[in-house]
Amino acid sequence: MSTEKNKDTKGVLQVRKHRKKKPSVEELTHGVLNGDKSILARAITLVESTRNDDLKQAYTLIENCLLKKSNSIRIGITGVPGVGKSTFIEIFGKTLTGLGKKVAVLAVDPTSTLSKGSILGDKTRMQELVKDPNAFIRPSPSGKSLGGVARKTRETIILCEAAGFDIILIETVGVGQSETAVHSMVDFFLLLKLAGAGDELQGIKRGIMEMADAIVINKAEGDNLKRAERAQVEFERALQLYPPKVNGWTPKVSTCSAIDNRGIIEIWEMIIQFLDTTRDHGYFESNRQNQNKYWLMQTIEELLKQQFYQTTAVKEHLESMLQKVAEDKISPFRAAELLMNNYKKELK
Amino acid sequence: MSTEKNKDTKGVLQVRKHRKKKPSVEELTHGVLNGDKSILARAITLVESTRNDDLKQAYTLIENCLLKKSNSIRIGITGVPGVGKSTFIEIFGKTLTGLGKKVAVLAVDPTSTLSKGSILGDKTRMQELVKDPNAFIRPSPSGKSLGGVARKTRETIILCEAAGFDIILIETVGVGQSETAVHSMVDFFLLLKLAGAGDELQGIKRGIMEMADAIVINKAEGDNLKRAERAQVEFERALQLYPPKVNGWTPKVSTCSAIDNRGIIEIWEMIIQFLDTTRDHGYFESNRQNQNKYWLMQTIEELLKQQFYQTTAVKEHLESMLQKVAEDKISPFRAAELLMNNYKKELK
Repeated sequence: MSTEKNKDTKGVLQVRKHRKKKPSVEELTHGVLNGDKSILARAITLVESTRNDDLKQAYTLIENCLLKKSNSIRIGITGVPGVGKSTFIEIFGKTLTGLGKKVAVLAVDPTSTLSKGSILGDKTRMQELVKDPNAFIRPSPSGKSLGGVARKTRETIILCEAAGFDIILIETVGVGQSETAVHSMVDFFLLLKLAGAGDELQGIKRGIMEMADAIVINKAEGDNLKRAERAQVEFERALQLYPPKVNGWTPKVSTCSAIDNRGIIEIWEMIIQFLDTTRDHGYFESNRQNQNKYWLMQTIEELLKQQFYQTTAVKEHLESMLQKVAEDKISPFRAAELLMNNYKKELK
Repeated sequence: MSTEKNKDTKGVLQVRKHRKKKPSVEELTHGVLNGDKSILARAITLVESTRNDDLKQAYTLIENCLLKKSNSIRIGITGVPGVGKSTFIEIFGKTLTGLGKKVAVLAVDPTSTLSKGSILGDKTRMQELVKDPNAFIRPSPSGKSLGGVARKTRETIILCEAAGFDIILIETVGVGQSETAVHSMVDFFLLLKLAGAGDELQGIKRGIMEMADAIVINKAEGDNLKRAERAQVEFERALQLYPPKVNGWTPKVSTCSAIDNRGIIEIWEMIIQFLDTTRDHGYFESNRQNQNKYWLMQTIEELLKQQFYQTTAVKEHLESMLQKVAEDKISPFRAAELLMNNYKKELK
């Protein structure tokens, strides 16, 4: 009996070991569609892999997952470091799971490779949400290019939706180009701000304010409440000077306190209002379609550039051309033509 | 004697006819560097030509012109139709020539091919400036792509500067992507606006306000004066909410009346202040260098895309791929890969 037991244990261990090594695409698909969070995590790891033989499997997995229809909502959340993004996402996520929603939290942070995961990488953050059975949290994929990081996040959205998550929150830091990438993969874009002039000096990227569907002034609590309310009026006034958005939605400004759980449910109500407006307009659906097309074109551009800049002849001459162009010794157009000629010769 | 005269006239005519047909690059260079406006016009025509055999000549001409050092200032001017751009440029240009400056007025308008020259094409506009010996006005080059139109304008700037023009005004309509292109070729970017909510509905593109180094509210005259002044306060307040610009310059808001010639010289004084600030910072020079590099990279991208989308296999499959991607039948990244494979096969 002891031998039997050992055998059994060994058998299980072997199966586990085998699984740990290489679950098949079928197993992954099955697990994801059943909403198994640990399989979902491994499916995402496959999609994030840069190994060539994983790529084919990843594509099959994604195509399987695309077949599952989803009514998900994708929400982008940005704001400079210090604005309280994690605390906000923790309480916002808990509010949503409290309403019976399944919530996935992803991140796009191309700097995380350098800083070893500045977003969602810290295990001490979102402690409540991590434990919630209806929540799934995944740190930003690492990668050298924003394009690569963004692409993996977009594919991860598809996996999460196939796994039954209805609300996808995508966090990003309001300091780089990643906002444009995230804005191009979400239905609703929320900008978190702090009251007071200090925030403007924290280096949020120009143009982000114009992307926002809502500006939420966080830390509206205690001594800060009055300032937050003044900031709300100011932002509302500023947004009126902006041209109207194509989605027919007038961006809203509100205040909240993530710590005191104040003004949080109101944000969800605002998003429902947004969905009603843009679904009626047909914008919601057409925006998703356009985003898909955008990513097709973007990926083509990225691949073309990647191929070009990896060419030996281009690598050899690019720096000196940039120098000559900067010094007005050659026109940028002539320099581009010369580099293109080098490139074409090498391709042949 | 009559025969002599005839011969002479004939001789001159022949030379003229010959010149009209094909001035050499040397002749064009010489004429441009001497500030000959009619030769400058023909040099620009060469640069704008799409004929392959003109291209080589155009490059030589531009490289010759790049050798001439210039202290020019490049100013972009945008605003929706109806804001009074031509009237403004006419009086602003006259003010500058009155100060002893040589002023060239160019335009970037990718729609002009369709609308047969909506900007600067109308001969009845800027009647005073056209007659000014120290001014040179050139309508937007025609072309199918914004990239092509912008590229020709950038090369035209070089010719105008070599011809001794110290101030280059580049006009564009505030409704499309051309603002980004113009913003990337100028030192100072001016947004013309009208007072009143109506302006916001005229469809100025989102993001343009954030590019502006100055917002000037035009038509601040008569009944409109009070509204213009109120608008000034509102815009000043709105701009304070924006993050600071990398050039160390705080965008200014002012009012003017182009018709009454009020507030015009003040704009020039503001630009001088801008130049002082950004030259001290070293930003002025580094911005020019970065713009040159930007155009090199932009042109490479444009050429790569052009080549890709002209491939037969890509032309055949692109539409159906876009459709599949829009309908979520295939992931955008997988579709891009398939198209890239088609493209590479055809290249070989």
